[in-house]
Amino acid sequence: MIAYPSSLTMLIEQLKKLPGVGRKTAERFAFKILEWSEKDQKQLASTLDNLHHKLTKCSQCGCFQQENSCSFCHRVFHSATLCIIASAKDAYAIEQTRIFQGHYHVLGCLLSPLEGRTPEHLQLEHLKKRISALNITEIILALDPTLEGDTTALYLHEIFQPMGLKVTKLALGLPVGSSLDFIDEGTLAQALNGRHCFLQ
Amino acid sequence: MIAYPSSLTMLIEQLKKLPGVGRKTAERFAFKILEWSEKDQKQLASTLDNLHHKLTKCSQCGCFQQENSCSFCHRVFHSATLCIIASAKDAYAIEQTRIFQGHYHVLGCLLSPLEGRTPEHLQLEHLKKRISALNITEIILALDPTLEGDTTALYLHEIFQPMGLKVTKLALGLPVGSSLDFIDEGTLAQALNGRHCFLQ
Repeated sequence: MIAYPSSLTMLIEQLKKLPGVGRKTAERFAFKILEWSEKDQKQLASTLDNLHHKLTKCSQCGCFQQENSCSFCHRVFHSATLCIIASAKDAYAIEQTRIFQGHYHVLGCLLSPLEGRTPEHLQLEHLKKRISALNITEIILALDPTLEGDTTALYLHEIFQPMGLKVTKLALGLPVGSSLDFIDEGTLAQALNGRHCFLQ
Repeated sequence: MIAYPSSLTMLIEQLKKLPGVGRKTAERFAFKILEWSEKDQKQLASTLDNLHHKLTKCSQCGCFQQENSCSFCHRVFHSATLCIIASAKDAYAIEQTRIFQGHYHVLGCLLSPLEGRTPEHLQLEHLKKRISALNITEIILALDPTLEGDTTALYLHEIFQPMGLKVTKLALGLPVGSSLDFIDEGTLAQALNGRHCFLQ
């Protein structure tokens, strides 16, 4: 039996590291890449080659920055609101709402005692220093509504509430455009509990 | 609104060229790649960079070859059977059956008058030369059982049958492990038509 040439095997093995990509999909991607022009192949190669050097994490907020200049920290504003997110990509999801204009802070992980992620991993000393330096008065906990996200939110709330800060978290309820027929009972219960007057 | 840094946008745009990958999946892949070690990023970059140079197509059979040496053409055998396939990757699928030991020939495309793929695209002169040089007596048409595959198979049959060659095509029927409940009527009709005696 003749197997794939070694370059092709190598490409397939590397593509299998992408999330949700198994052998079959990696093979499909690899054969598609083989059909690309040499220019396209080399462009992707060069982007990947420069990635680690060009794209780093801001030492202040933890968001991605290009060539050591953080767009989030350099945005000119005087906001007293700090939005705490779990990972750097969440900042772009929030930016797309065009509602939030404050500061961000990336935690880097969520608490999970079973997986060994304890409060030390959250680097709260650095967070506290930023809160005082930026004169923050409100903290928005924009964490996933999962067991780990809720645990982390509760932990942070118990730390920052006594410091006199207003601590808020994102609303739970029906996603826009959803149908009551298909919504799980947990979400529906949260939507009922959080019901509010019209035109609020 | 702060958008992605340009390196990240570039990576996402390039990953969107993979088959079945839209914006959301490309973003997911890109953020995963950002979590990879610098070594892993650079390894994939280097594989892609060398791909066009290392992996070429054999001028004889059309299969992939590494460093100008075709494993398929250099396999030592005296076979009078030629398997005609649509694309180079089909050879590896057939190799995995470990049944076929003959020669391959990659057509490169299937006939499709609507998309402008006419018989000239099949480069039959080169195919005819190979058939005579290799003393081929049987041609296996291993093409997809689709409208385009069947059209191409019929066209090739009408050319090679009069030349005194045995022309065969792959059997149609139930896939191994399938269930009659879920099989479409076209496949079931082909399986009934192609029924054969036990222990054949």
